[in-house]
Amino acid sequence: MKIVAVLYPEGETDGGGPPVLATAENVLGLRPFLEEQGHEIVGTSDTGAELDAQLADADVLITTPFWPLYLDEERIEKAPELRLVITAGIGSDHIDEEVAERHGITVAEVTGSNVVSVAEHNVMQILALVRNMIPAHRQAVEGRWDVADAAREAHDLEEKTVGIVGLGAIGARTALRLKGFDVRMLYHANHRRDPAEEATLGVKYARLDDLVAESDVICLALPLMEGSRALFGRERLAAMKPGSWLVNTARGAIVDTDALAEALESGHLAGYAGDTWYPQPAPSDHPWRTMPRHAMTIHYSGMTVEAQQRIAAGVKEILQAYLAGRALPEDYVLVDASAA
Amino acid sequence: MKIVAVLYPEGETDGGGPPVLATAENVLGLRPFLEEQGHEIVGTSDTGAELDAQLADADVLITTPFWPLYLDEERIEKAPELRLVITAGIGSDHIDEEVAERHGITVAEVTGSNVVSVAEHNVMQILALVRNMIPAHRQAVEGRWDVADAAREAHDLEEKTVGIVGLGAIGARTALRLKGFDVRMLYHANHRRDPAEEATLGVKYARLDDLVAESDVICLALPLMEGSRALFGRERLAAMKPGSWLVNTARGAIVDTDALAEALESGHLAGYAGDTWYPQPAPSDHPWRTMPRHAMTIHYSGMTVEAQQRIAAGVKEILQAYLAGRALPEDYVLVDASAA
Repeated sequence: MKIVAVLYPEGETDGGGPPVLATAENVLGLRPFLEEQGHEIVGTSDTGAELDAQLADADVLITTPFWPLYLDEERIEKAPELRLVITAGIGSDHIDEEVAERHGITVAEVTGSNVVSVAEHNVMQILALVRNMIPAHRQAVEGRWDVADAAREAHDLEEKTVGIVGLGAIGARTALRLKGFDVRMLYHANHRRDPAEEATLGVKYARLDDLVAESDVICLALPLMEGSRALFGRERLAAMKPGSWLVNTARGAIVDTDALAEALESGHLAGYAGDTWYPQPAPSDHPWRTMPRHAMTIHYSGMTVEAQQRIAAGVKEILQAYLAGRALPEDYVLVDASAA
Repeated sequence: MKIVAVLYPEGETDGGGPPVLATAENVLGLRPFLEEQGHEIVGTSDTGAELDAQLADADVLITTPFWPLYLDEERIEKAPELRLVITAGIGSDHIDEEVAERHGITVAEVTGSNVVSVAEHNVMQILALVRNMIPAHRQAVEGRWDVADAAREAHDLEEKTVGIVGLGAIGARTALRLKGFDVRMLYHANHRRDPAEEATLGVKYARLDDLVAESDVICLALPLMEGSRALFGRERLAAMKPGSWLVNTARGAIVDTDALAEALESGHLAGYAGDTWYPQPAPSDHPWRTMPRHAMTIHYSGMTVEAQQRIAAGVKEILQAYLAGRALPEDYVLVDASAA
């Protein structure tokens, strides 16, 4: 079998750090295991012609949300042997699942592998925005000591209303971590949790419009899908409370790029953070890089050292089952071509 | 009565923000209340000759830890009328209490006014260090997309050991907020909490040496006093786990300035954050501004908009009692000159 993995490049090392598991070079540590069994593994960061050449005879494709290959019909038709696509991480919106199914391709992702990582990132970025951390850090680095300037837009999270949109594995873990901060938490999701779950998480259900109108902080924790693309467009951003904050580690395309930059420039929103962009890698002139009041990071929240280890173990588990002709672990499967 | 308040300057405004309550100009909003009663209030950011001139006939002095006046014997002798010193915040180590007592000066601070603010800052800065936020944010701003470089030193907080040194009002609130993150928490303090309190906070008692040896993250939450000055000197920093992180929102002088910079430059510590420095304001060439692997802010953690309101209310409460000849609220008093 030929396995092709599209992963981010090794990049500039800082000289002394440990190797990063999920690079194109290190291919999630899978090389020894695959080569021992006589399989071929190719790691690349290319998403153009070089990749197309590799895909021509590939049986399995591994991709990640952090350095996504946008897999549409045109691309899939260039890979006639492809039978399995694995997302090394969570969130497979870069794959057209309907097309994959039609071409008899199974799609799987490593469910659960980095939900804690992203939940921690949510809490960190909520605090960084509300407490005005980035400008206060910049002062430390730049040799300034202007307490009034740092304090002017610094708030406590305590007693604020936090609205979580989407209450799946990441949203629920975010709520559990926020609970200790004495906040009021609302959530909106397609499926309402039962009362005991709501009580444990410390959340109350709200319609989306009500959540948007009442929240001081909104945290997006829903997948990108037809109903969520540009869900936070010009109109919904305008409906947010003046001076409120928005955190989005879900997917960049859930928020309208230009409308967001304008809401920050006008001061209607007090801040935006998250680490997902559209497209990815974000071009160096992406407007979110230079808009005011942001505390964004590049997309790595689900790529901590520990998350990479869990992702690598999950991908190996999927490959082991697939190569042995066994059924894949059920909770990993998004599109089951064998069931067609 | 003449009240002198040493507060940070108004500074550079960002054009559109609300006024900052705790500046020398706005003197905690106390002006109308004091002037109505015929008292004089002077706000200044000067800590030199100009202040000395004001102190010559001052009855009451208001100071803050954020822009401290270091009040030693030499200074106190220049203020013969002084009978009350109020810290607008918490932590009065900038005042020599023994000298104050000898000169018949009462010292009070606004206990509890910003303990939540600082506890939130602790959690934020722990997450920022462990998850490598600052370098990943810098990439976003600088137009880069090097996931490997950001991920190489990014970790989950989950399952790490966090050691809290000092478990007073701030340390305990920090523990309550960290509890949801599935960490193991140790604490060291002069007084051991009872078992029910330890269980509620999710912490286990440890000797300081054991806490230092076992913690992945150490969070300092103890006052600056004789026993804590340079408590984290060269030897104790060397005893910390390689690759561990240190957060210090307590007081800069608890950590040895040069030894810390060296521990970061050698890579023995993976990162340092906090917002207290020594001295304050930190000079523009303070080594902590330029040392590697830091996520520091200037000292404003206890100066959020909400904390300023609580501090202003507390200072007013103290002044009201004092000016009416009533006893000060007991929990605010550090040195009671009337009891001498």
